[in-house]
This record gives sequence, structure tokens and C-alpha cells, in this order.
Amino acid sequence: MALDHTASGVYVIAPTPFHDDGRVDEASTDRMTDFFMEAGATGITVLGVMGEAPKLDQAEALSIATRMIKRASIPIVVGVSAPGFAAMRALARGSMDAGAAGVMIAPPNTLRTDDQIVTYYRQAVEAIGADVPFVLQDYPLLFQVQMTPGVIKRIVTDNPSCVMLKAEDWPGLEKISTLRAWQAEGSLRPISILCGNGGLFIDFEVERGADGAMTGYAFPDMLVEVVGKLQAGQRDSAHDLFDAHLPLIRYEQQFGLGLAVRKYVMKRRGIIASDAQRKPGGMLSAKAVAEVEYLLGRLAQHDPRAKV
Amino acid sequence: MALDHTASGVYVIAPTPFHDDGRVDEASTDRMTDFFMEAGATGITVLGVMGEAPKLDQAEALSIATRMIKRASIPIVVGVSAPGFAAMRALARGSMDAGAAGVMIAPPNTLRTDDQIVTYYRQAVEAIGADVPFVLQDYPLLFQVQMTPGVIKRIVTDNPSCVMLKAEDWPGLEKISTLRAWQAEGSLRPISILCGNGGLFIDFEVERGADGAMTGYAFPDMLVEVVGKLQAGQRDSAHDLFDAHLPLIRYEQQFGLGLAVRKYVMKRRGIIASDAQRKPGGMLSAKAVAEVEYLLGRLAQHDPRAKV
Amino acid sequence: MALDHTASGVYVIAPTPFHDDGRVDEASTDRMTDFFMEAGATGITVLGVMGEAPKLDQAEALSIATRMIKRASIPIVVGVSAPGFAAMRALARGSMDAGAAGVMIAPPNTLRTDDQIVTYYRQAVEAIGADVPFVLQDYPLLFQVQMTPGVIKRIVTDNPSCVMLKAEDWPGLEKISTLRAWQAEGSLRPISILCGNGGLFIDFEVERGADGAMTGYAFPDMLVEVVGKLQAGQRDSAHDLFDAHLPLIRYEQQFGLGLAVRKYVMKRRGIIASDAQRKPGGMLSAKAVAEVEYLLGRLAQHDPRAKV
Amino acid sequence: MALDHTASGVYVIAPTPFHDDGRVDEASTDRMTDFFMEAGATGITVLGVMGEAPKLDQAEALSIATRMIKRASIPIVVGVSAPGFAAMRALARGSMDAGAAGVMIAPPNTLRTDDQIVTYYRQAVEAIGADVPFVLQDYPLLFQVQMTPGVIKRIVTDNPSCVMLKAEDWPGLEKISTLRAWQAEGSLRPISILCGNGGLFIDFEVERGADGAMTGYAFPDMLVEVVGKLQAGQRDSAHDLFDAHLPLIRYEQQFGLGLAVRKYVMKRRGIIASDAQRKPGGMLSAKAVAEVEYLLGRLAQHDPRAKV
Repeated sequence: MALDHTASGVYVIAPTPFHDDGRVDEASTDRMTDFFMEAGATGITVLGVMGEAPKLDQAEALSIATRMIKRASIPIVVGVSAPGFAAMRALARGSMDAGAAGVMIAPPNTLRTDDQIVTYYRQAVEAIGADVPFVLQDYPLLFQVQMTPGVIKRIVTDNPSCVMLKAEDWPGLEKISTLRAWQAEGSLRPISILCGNGGLFIDFEVERGADGAMTGYAFPDMLVEVVGKLQAGQRDSAHDLFDAHLPLIRYEQQFGLGLAVRKYVMKRRGIIASDAQRKPGGMLSAKAVAEVEYLLGRLAQHDPRAKV
Repeated sequence: MALDHTASGVYVIAPTPFHDDGRVDEASTDRMTDFFMEAGATGITVLGVMGEAPKLDQAEALSIATRMIKRASIPIVVGVSAPGFAAMRALARGSMDAGAAGVMIAPPNTLRTDDQIVTYYRQAVEAIGADVPFVLQDYPLLFQVQMTPGVIKRIVTDNPSCVMLKAEDWPGLEKISTLRAWQAEGSLRPISILCGNGGLFIDFEVERGADGAMTGYAFPDMLVEVVGKLQAGQRDSAHDLFDAHLPLIRYEQQFGLGLAVRKYVMKRRGIIASDAQRKPGGMLSAKAVAEVEYLLGRLAQHDPRAKV
Repeated sequence: MALDHTASGVYVIAPTPFHDDGRVDEASTDRMTDFFMEAGATGITVLGVMGEAPKLDQAEALSIATRMIKRASIPIVVGVSAPGFAAMRALARGSMDAGAAGVMIAPPNTLRTDDQIVTYYRQAVEAIGADVPFVLQDYPLLFQVQMTPGVIKRIVTDNPSCVMLKAEDWPGLEKISTLRAWQAEGSLRPISILCGNGGLFIDFEVERGADGAMTGYAFPDMLVEVVGKLQAGQRDSAHDLFDAHLPLIRYEQQFGLGLAVRKYVMKRRGIIASDAQRKPGGMLSAKAVAEVEYLLGRLAQHDPRAKV
Repeated sequence: MALDHTASGVYVIAPTPFHDDGRVDEASTDRMTDFFMEAGATGITVLGVMGEAPKLDQAEALSIATRMIKRASIPIVVGVSAPGFAAMRALARGSMDAGAAGVMIAPPNTLRTDDQIVTYYRQAVEAIGADVPFVLQDYPLLFQVQMTPGVIKRIVTDNPSCVMLKAEDWPGLEKISTLRAWQAEGSLRPISILCGNGGLFIDFEVERGADGAMTGYAFPDMLVEVVGKLQAGQRDSAHDLFDAHLPLIRYEQQFGLGLAVRKYVMKRRGIIASDAQRKPGGMLSAKAVAEVEYLLGRLAQHDPRAKV
């Protein structure tokens, strides 16, 4: 089940469930995996930024990835971003051996020029092996690395194993249009484009040519529906559902706090047992909890899934 | 009409209207000024980031500020951020002489440590004069300068002429709560807090203790209503109105493109004659225009002001 | 006397002399101008970073540039970097009208991608006029903008008015070699390359193909000699002189303090009356002054000019 | 042999020797360890930035540290900087179990405010254990994290296990003076201060109060002598030796190329067998090699150790 450019739908970015004392919560991991499949996800991405990957040691990381791969019947993508290529290779090969569909690679925040970015991905592919399908993560607001469409084109062209773009530039709509226009004219080979940023622009991204979402909003079942409606041409209906969730989506889009909101809501939905994060991690104040509850209450008037 | 800590309501961040050829459009400037007053704004801020201030030369900047000061019957705050204190002083003194209520100062993006930030504001006050009321602009996402609540407290305490915080950290809700808690316990003197970020969190910011908004969404009349409802305790009604606008507010929150959206909508509302920006400036593609029109159409179902 | 690609030798980066109270010191400005010519400088650059340009208002800046242009019989380059194109244009046109040989433009520190840098310089040329010869300043350590040789090539090719590179990347030797190799093979038109960084690598930069230096070490007369010796093939002799100055050159290369050292030494040499800087500015502690004096004493054993 | 605040002299930053094919070169590692001891080093630091630590996987890193610990009769400090606390803890505990004297922790380049820096070190100590002596690395030019003297004081005061500062701010002389003044007045407890930056300011740093150097210039034997002379009050003699090396020290201070120069010279001195680096790594061009050889030739006139 190797990842390729035909991937579409919703790949859910999985958080890593912890017990309150910081140990990995395996039962919650299993329950969450099942939930994502029931929600209609077409794939799952583990060990991304929102998976608290850097807070795990090498053995823990591989263990979590392996557990989800074994349990899921949908493709699992494993985030293998690392400060050096030796560690990246170790996790990538280990994950693929365990049955991962592919890996995801974010750029280190020290890259600046176009050439530096292109060189980095060439060396990364050398390190992990050209046989490992990989997702290119374009997330300038967090990583401080700005990839123009031209740079993405160079990476895709240089590396046949690049099969997907996780598009979370902000703003990013024109970038999707540009890449799809290049494909239409034949100057860029097909890749899958799945969008991030918590889904904040998913209502337009699919119309611009994205194949769906790869993100981690606490209602991935809603994302599945919205993407489905958009792909079916049900524009107004898609926006109606999306707009009902937008106040909460927006609230989740708070850097450093977003994961706390997401884990809190997933706990309230019964998906995970605890919303604990390993250090360093954001925590919801009592006021923030009340705000989330208020938003859930308002959402429940439109979407019964929010009745928690 | 000097700015002081009692300021509340909505201070609209004014764009600078240009003709298509790049000249300042004085007729649109007047019409826009009138519109803001009719919309219920309690103040106007000119020459901020969204006012394309760095693209004006010194004479143009002072001329625009003076024109709005003369026309408006509400307080005008003038952005005087500059690469050096000599230029800052010239614009600040000129604006105050023309009748401005106060000035706004953003930190240069080279400041890093707490002490550097505090020192900068002390020297800025020396430059413009301790008699000029000023607004402290806290906008880390754009300026790359991170002020903790403690740093804001030091600036407010060191400089009696600091009367207002333009709060646009993201996330920023806890910062407002912290500052207000310090005031409640008496360790921080009163200041006005008006919020930015295009209003994206105004539905909760007022409840956290903000006095209103200082931002530039294309429907400032909506911001006035929402702030009013929240101040009157009409929480659900405020959220209903806010949520109807959120899809468009969110669409305006695209760095580098937001001003193009805002000017486009203001032009469609008949407030300004042209949505031209001076270089460098973002431009809306045909697809983006269609998306804005679609959002306006949906909004018009809830708010007749969007029928344009 | 328009600047062109044949410029060579030493263009001295001029500090702006102030009185102790912060007013511009015109007598020192004149004396300094004369000194630079007597020292054998082939040109002078005013209003650069080390000229405290951002601390001057628009009228002061033009006044200083004009004064030096009138007094000097060698070409004057005027730094016109500004936060926006309107101010840049005003200073550039004013300086050229006053008789400047050309202008120098540094990139704003918000530029990241190759395309952003190239676009910026295209728009800058549109703003100041294609008839104004300009120097491209490449100083990543200070400006946080990284230009690859390829980006420099694009700027030079796009803009015929780009006649010189102020090369102060660090490390920068390979960049000079690459650009000169491109010129040798005919893929890049000739430009002058003058080097900065306080002269810290001038002993090798000329051999790599640079035409000389554009920098502001307190002994420009030494730089003139070293460049001359290198151009005459007197390698060992050039290094002997350079090495004697290196401890002080190194001491001047302290970000935020370097100008204080430079002004102090220039005052001790009788070139300027005061080493005052406008705020914000570094100041030498008593210990630092003693260290500089010790270095001057050691230098005087090799170079009598250091007997002050 | 636990590291404490009395550490002084020269702790050499060890590169990691590789074979040309990228495998760790154990024979060279042993020879290098012996050489550092013969050179008079009082300690060795492994797995620092110049040790290419991020390019090693977890097992390799611990293996290299352990090998040097077993072979050396002087204290070994192990760099344990990592993207997360789990990996940091694993390497720190493993190293201490193997007999390390202490560990070194650099701040992640995402830290900005004073509080963020202080919190990071508190959490790091929680992770590795308060019983592990650690070195605080202050290297703003590389890490983009600026620690004021006040922040260093807070970290030292909060964490009794902080026993040493690796001081490589630039400029950094005043910082050393400030910290020592605080100790003299009793407001800061004693810590060891060893200086980095390739030794570029070691001639003054010891006089400002530093206990020596922790850096990796290719002639650590020279650093040992210079520090010894300065500690013995032989100022002129120390500067004579230092100045002879300064042209090469300066040449090594080229970001991204410095390690290539250092490894090349160490290979020429017969200390390591190959100057290979793992990717990504800088490489010396033929011109750069010729420049290094020229500098070695000139240096050999003053210091016979450079006759290679």
C-alpha cells in the first residue's frame, strides 16, 4: 500500500495520546486509530508537528508508528523530520519496514535560498532511499522556510519519490492554482495535494485543485464530509457545514495552543483518555476551556457530533 | 482631544486610498473618513501597516494625516513607526501640531531581548516627547518581536505617555487576561486595550477585558455592533453576527493579500474609488475575486450591508 | 562622473560626524572628506549602515550627501535604502541632482525567496529611475537576506544600471570567484566588485577577483596600500601590512560596537572632533577604550600612522 | 570527575573524524584524543556543533562519546542538544553513565523572550536530572537566541547544576565583565566561563575574567599557551603568539566553511586521517586550500608547529 500521487480525501494528522504522567497511552492510540477509520479518513499521518514527534525518543517514535500501522487498514504516513539525515534515515527505514505507506519531511528552519531548499530534499532522498515515497511539507508560518511554486516544481522534478505536497502556506490558494496550471500544461508531473492549516481554507482549497486535506482538526469526520461535498460539486452545502465549524476551527488555529484545544475536544468526544501533552506544551486556562465549551454548544445546534 | 486610557469602541485602521496611477485619492479619503464616522467608529488610525505608510514619502504621510484630522470629529491616531528616531519625531510632532489625538509606534523587527524592547520604547518617547500619547503595537506575527506581558508592563510603567495597547498577538487571549488581572490587583496602571488581527478573535477579546477593536476589516460597522453587543452583555447575539462575517474575516486574514481583499470590498461598498495599491502590493486573481464575491453573497443572506 | 563597472580601489564608507549633542558636525565632515582624498580613496560612500543613515531625517540626509559631493573631487555614492520606494526615490533623485555618482541599495530584511529579492530590485529601479547607477549591497549577516550568485546574476542581468556589487557575504570568497568565472565565460556582464566587512578578508578578496574595498576601517590609508600592493602582485608585502592591522580590524568587527571603535580611532587620529553617535548607539566602556589603545600601541610598532 | 565551576584552561571542541565514506573513524578518534591531552588541554567537548552531532544517530553519538571518555584522562563534556527532551535525556543519562564529566546544552533557535529561554533550561534540567552538571552555551550568531547577562544570571540561579558558561556571543567582552562584576559583588554565584568563537577574542577574554577557552581551532596547543601566558600576566608575549595565528584563526571563522578548514589543517598536522564531513557539509575549493597553505606557510615563520 505505497503512497502515490492518486491519494485523496482526508489524511488525519494524529496526535500522540499520553497518559497524565507523560507515558504513551496505547489504548487511546488504538481507539483513536479506529475512530479515524470510522470517520471516513483515507489515511493517517503520525509523528507530525501535532504528534509531538520531537518529544519522543527514537524507540518510542517507531513503536507508535508501528502500532498504528498494524491496527489500521488505511495508509499510514510517518513524519521523519529530524535534525540530521542519520536519524531521519533510521526512522524512515524502520517505518517502511513496519509497513508505512510513505514518510513526510519538513524543512529545517535554517534553510533560506531556493538552492538550499532543493539541495536539502535531494540529500534527504539520498539518505532515506529513493524507493521511499515522501510527502513534501510546505508550512512557512511554522518552519520559516518559504518555498515558491518554482522550488516545489524543482523538488518534484528532481525526486520521483516525491508523491504528495502537504500544502499549508498561508496564503496558499494561488500556489495550488499555479501548481495545477503547470500540471495542466504538462510542465509538472502529477502529485497529490492535501491541505493543512487546520482546515481553515479547505472550503476553497479543493476548488482550487487540492485532492483533500491532511490536517488534524478535532472533527475529522466533518472534514471528510466537506471534502466529499466539494468533490461532488455541492458547493453551498459544503460551505454551510464548514461555516458552522469555522468558529471552532479558527479557535484551534492558535499557535502553541491549538493542540491543547484539539486534544481537549478529542477527549470530550471520548476518542482519547487524557489531553496531556509532554513538555513543552500549551495548556488551556479555565477561561479557554469555557470558551471551547461555548463554541461546542453553539456548534451542536448545527452539528449533532458536537453534543459531547 | 488627546488619546487616553479610557478609549474604547472601534478605532478603524484606515487604508490609504490611491488612484489607479498611484496618486493619493483625496476625495476617497474624505468619503472614507465620513463613512467611518457614520459607521459608529470612535476613532481612526492612519498610516498603520495597512495604510501602506512606508510607501509614502514624508510630505505625503503628513498631508494624509492632516487631511483626516481636519475632516473628522473623532480622534485620529497616526502611525509614526520609522527606521530611525529623527523621522519618527518629525512625523509625530507634525501630526500632533495638526491636531492628532496620539501616535502609534511599532517595534522594529530587529529587537529580540526584553531589555532591547523596553529600551527602544524609552528612546522613542525621548525622541517624540513625553507629552505625546502613544499606542504600543504588539503584533509578533508581522513584526517578529515577541513582548511578554511583563515587557508590556515595563513599557507602560516606564512611560506615562503609553495610554493604549494595540493587542494583536496570536494567540492573544491569555495576554489580555493577564494584563487585566494585574490592573485588578493594582500592579499595573489602567490602559486602553484595543484588538487587531482583523477582528478574528474579537468575539472573545472583549470578554477577556479588551475595550474594543483597532483593526481594519471591510465592515467596521459590524465590528462596532459586535463590540457594542458584547459590552451590553448580549453574548449570543454578538456571536451570531460575528459568525456570519467570520468566513470573510478569515479570508481577509491572508498575509500580503488581506489589504487587497479589504480594498476590493471597500470599493464594492462604494467607500473608495479604486482598490489600487502602491508597489509592492498583493493583487487579487480572478479566482480570488470570485471567491470574495461568493462570500459576500453568502454574507448578504445574514447581513444586508453585504448586498453590494 | 557617473559610477560604472570600472570602479576600483577603495571607496571609504563614511561615518556621519556628530557633535556631542547630536547635531551634525559640518566642520568634521569637511575635514574627513579631505582626509579620505589624501588617503588615496578613489571614492566615498555616505549614508550607509555605518553612516547612521536611518537616524537622520530626510532633509539632514540630503544635506550631508550634498555637502560631501560639493567638497570632494572623487565620486560619491549615496546610500538610499529606505522602508519604501517613495522615500528611496526622493533621496536618490535628490542626490543625483546634487551630483552623486550613484546610489547604494540594501535589501529589506523581510525578503526571503530568490524571486522576492529579484523583484525587489526591479521595483527599486523602477522607483529611482533606470538612469541612476546603483550598487547592490550583499550583506547577509546584517540584513538577513541571502543572495546566491545566481540571484546576483539575475539582478545584474535584469538591471543595466546595476554597476557594482558591495560584497560582504561571510564567507564570501567563493562567491567572488564564481561571479568572476561567469564573467570570464561570458555569461555575466562586467561589474565592479568592492568588498566590505571592515576589510577582514581583503587580503584574499582582491586575489579572488575583487576590484578593491568599500568599507570603513579607521585606517582607510592602509586599505588603499594593501589593495595597491595586491593589484601590483606584491603579495607577501600586502599580507605583512594587513596582518599588522588585523588585531584592530578584528576588534572593529563587533556588531553594534564596531562604529564606536571606528569613530574613537578616527577622533584619536584627529579626523573628526567627537565620536558621538545618535541613539541607539553602542558605547565603549573604559575597558574597551584601554583595549583599543593597547592595540593601537602594538600597531604603532609596525605602522607609524597608529602613533596617535 | 564531575565538571564544576573551577574548570579552567582549554576544553577542546572535538570534531568527529570520519572515513572518506562517512563511517566514523575510530583510530583517528583515539589519536585525536591523545593529541588533545598532549597539547595540554584540560578537557574535551564532544558532539558539539563542530562535532557534526546532528548528523549522527543516537547509537553512534553515544558510542563516540563513550570511546573518548574511556580513552581520556581529562574531563569529557558531551553535547546533548536535541529537538526534544526525550532524546536529550537519553543521551545525557547514557553519557553520564559512561563517565562523562558533564553535558552541554544549546538553546533551540525558536526561543525568543527572556522567559522562554529561562523556562527552556528549567525544563531541560528536569529532563536530564538535576544531578548532571551542565554547560550553558551562549552563541547567538549561530543559534539566533540572544541571552542578556540577566537571563544568564536567572538560569545560573535557578539551576545549581549549571556550572559553566560557554561564552561565544559576539561581541561578548562586556558580557564577561558584567557577569564577573556580579560575582564580585555577590549577586551571582561562581561559574566557570570558557570562551568560543574559534578563539577570535581570547586575547582579551581572559583579561575580562574568562577562565579560558572552549573552542576548536586547529592549533589547540597555541590556545593552551596563550591562555597560560595571559593567566601568568605575560600580556605582550600572549598577544605576540596570538597575533601570529590570527590570520588563520580569522580564516577558520567562516560559517559553514570553518569546519572544513579545521579538519584540513588537523589532517595536515597528522591528527586525523581524513577531512571528510557527512552531508550537509562545506568543502574547500582548490583556491581555498591554496590560501590555507599560504597562511600555514606564513605562520610557520613564527610558530614551528605550522610546518606541516
